[in-house]
Amino acid sequence: MKQVIGARCTICGHMIAAEPGITVCPKCGGILDIEYDYDFIKSKLTKYDLMDREEQSMWRYMEFLPVEGPGTLPKLRVGMSPFYRADRMAGLLGIGTLYIKDDGINPTASLKDRASAMAVVKAEEAGKTTIACSSTGNAASSLAGNAACAGLSTFIFVPSRAPKGKVAQLMMFGAKVILVEGSYEDTFRISAEAIDRWGWYNRNAAINPYLMEGKKTVSFEIAEQLNFRMTDYVAISVGDGCTIAGVWKGFKDLYAAGFIDRLPRLISVQAEGCCPINTAAAAGTEAWTPQEENTIADSIAVGVPRNPIKAIRAIRESDGVTVNVSDEEIMEAMRLLGRNAGVFAEPAGATGTAGVKKAVELGLIEKDASVVSVVTGNGLKDVNNAIRAAGEPLSIRPDMDELVKALGM
Amino acid sequence: MKQVIGARCTICGHMIAAEPGITVCPKCGGILDIEYDYDFIKSKLTKYDLMDREEQSMWRYMEFLPVEGPGTLPKLRVGMSPFYRADRMAGLLGIGTLYIKDDGINPTASLKDRASAMAVVKAEEAGKTTIACSSTGNAASSLAGNAACAGLSTFIFVPSRAPKGKVAQLMMFGAKVILVEGSYEDTFRISAEAIDRWGWYNRNAAINPYLMEGKKTVSFEIAEQLNFRMTDYVAISVGDGCTIAGVWKGFKDLYAAGFIDRLPRLISVQAEGCCPINTAAAAGTEAWTPQEENTIADSIAVGVPRNPIKAIRAIRESDGVTVNVSDEEIMEAMRLLGRNAGVFAEPAGATGTAGVKKAVELGLIEKDASVVSVVTGNGLKDVNNAIRAAGEPLSIRPDMDELVKALGM
Repeated sequence: MKQVIGARCTICGHMIAAEPGITVCPKCGGILDIEYDYDFIKSKLTKYDLMDREEQSMWRYMEFLPVEGPGTLPKLRVGMSPFYRADRMAGLLGIGTLYIKDDGINPTASLKDRASAMAVVKAEEAGKTTIACSSTGNAASSLAGNAACAGLSTFIFVPSRAPKGKVAQLMMFGAKVILVEGSYEDTFRISAEAIDRWGWYNRNAAINPYLMEGKKTVSFEIAEQLNFRMTDYVAISVGDGCTIAGVWKGFKDLYAAGFIDRLPRLISVQAEGCCPINTAAAAGTEAWTPQEENTIADSIAVGVPRNPIKAIRAIRESDGVTVNVSDEEIMEAMRLLGRNAGVFAEPAGATGTAGVKKAVELGLIEKDASVVSVVTGNGLKDVNNAIRAAGEPLSIRPDMDELVKALGM
Repeated sequence: MKQVIGARCTICGHMIAAEPGITVCPKCGGILDIEYDYDFIKSKLTKYDLMDREEQSMWRYMEFLPVEGPGTLPKLRVGMSPFYRADRMAGLLGIGTLYIKDDGINPTASLKDRASAMAVVKAEEAGKTTIACSSTGNAASSLAGNAACAGLSTFIFVPSRAPKGKVAQLMMFGAKVILVEGSYEDTFRISAEAIDRWGWYNRNAAINPYLMEGKKTVSFEIAEQLNFRMTDYVAISVGDGCTIAGVWKGFKDLYAAGFIDRLPRLISVQAEGCCPINTAAAAGTEAWTPQEENTIADSIAVGVPRNPIKAIRAIRESDGVTVNVSDEEIMEAMRLLGRNAGVFAEPAGATGTAGVKKAVELGLIEKDASVVSVVTGNGLKDVNNAIRAAGEPLSIRPDMDELVKALGM
């Protein structure tokens, strides 16, 4: 892995070798960040090489990734998700140009597939055949799906209050699901003990520095789909902070290697009912405060974020914009995306778009701005909230006169 | 459209011009089939041209499609869905080679997107700005999504007993949904009257001969993803008959144009509880009999198929195999696909794979056969049946001793 220099602690700056099984800083417990040799990467890859490349997945960016190679295990096709220019929506939002990056079109229907695909390759490098995590959401389903394709075992710990549908999806992928009768903290603690005891590969986004390196591929794709001419802004919903940190890392990688000549500003969007990262970033501090979790956007309802520092730094470094949106604004963005772009998003998936709309209304971004809005998850993941957002259909008896009257046509 | 000769009736053989708005045969009411000039197509396209083509959607096969061009309206990215070689599953099923074509990875999560994308282009050619259909299933959601992206209006008629989740998805895409208090027949009748009255574009698969031409692109992709070396068999679930007819048309097109040198045999899979097409095909007749609709695979629960003749002919022409599977066998195939390929299928989506397993067990196909199994829809479409199929998770108190005991490790 000549492209990787090492893993540096985001707190104390200590640098360690990028072994496949590393978790947090051995000195201070801080989160690690993988560092690259961009001169080496530039000597191996140009953007013109990329444009000729056949691989249609996140692995087309291999030179920028912290892996020895593609590994030998079978893989789901993660990444190279659709990218749409949405002119009618741009008009409705009142901005110059809008692009939608639809990462709900992934094997398990969320951006998290990028992190889990990376976890599978790193687990293989580490010589592990079992991966574990503690989650009920997209991290868990993406881990279960990607590991199943690779032939790896998964143990997934979930609080017993987890929705049956989400548990069923995990079990369809053959995950060994352990319902823990207790809080999320209880669940996390028992999972950590079990990972220690049995030596499983650990897929927890903040603890494992490689997962963010998978997520950053969404930015490589955005840049390439824009023919390397970056927009002014990239909007993304924020929960535990790992995704926005990954998005920023991807753009910084491309800039450092000379593939793009400017960096976009990030629009960091959280739910009003749960926005600890934006609150700290807006105050210009890394000292965040835990919050309650009051939002329908469950995938970003994280009151105690696990990667706040990388996220807050990403917002600051990009000269970013923070904006918090209400549940009603999220549901309005779901309707806008569906009706005008044909993109069905889960609430957290539409939150970035809700933030773009609000940022324009608040005058936080310019009216002629160009923006990419990343949709992070598919609406089929959360049909109950789609029912809430959708409104009521017309209802008639099977009679033409009633139809004419109901339609007012 | 020099590639298209015309539209020929499958019953009386009458040929008419392939206008954008045609429906059934004006002479006898039979279903029409689009006919092509393969010499012309061969003069415009080789398989080597295809391999160099950048377009990553079903429209990369434009020369084989009955359209003037791509149209001017924005499009969802339909097609070029993942194609996996699944060696572990091949071993479990007891066949030589198995490939999975995962068409659940499409913008609205089913193969029907291919037909609806075609409907949108043909509606534009016909100068229509409104499309209508009568359905609650994948045809309706794909129409709503593809039309929303294009900026076209949709009217979708559904019986009032339709599940709320499915209606919500249609409404999120901005479809005007009309719940009809009556049977499916009542719903269909009022939709037909409305289409007549207001002159909307008609998206009903059996009535509109172009929709099957969209579906056939799945076969183009399968052939290309196999580097044009066809497998012995292609397995597909069968409901109203339009999809298997489209699949067969695609392979026949490629064979006629010299892109593949042999045709696969079709494995036509229906649910035991609703198998009128297979029953007729197995008896060597086109005279099918309506059946009850008793299966969890709702997307193929069609007791009165709307395209039986094309389907039965496709099975016969391909020297095909018919096999019917129970609900239990469908759920077993859902588990097999999830656990061994990382592919989450809705019941009808897994039915083809269930048929492959059963065909091996019954000795209908050879143990060293190579087979492509098409997954037609995503499991997120039908979480309730996933819950039925998934089984029960482990449940423990947050205690390590309990975990050790529960896992038996």
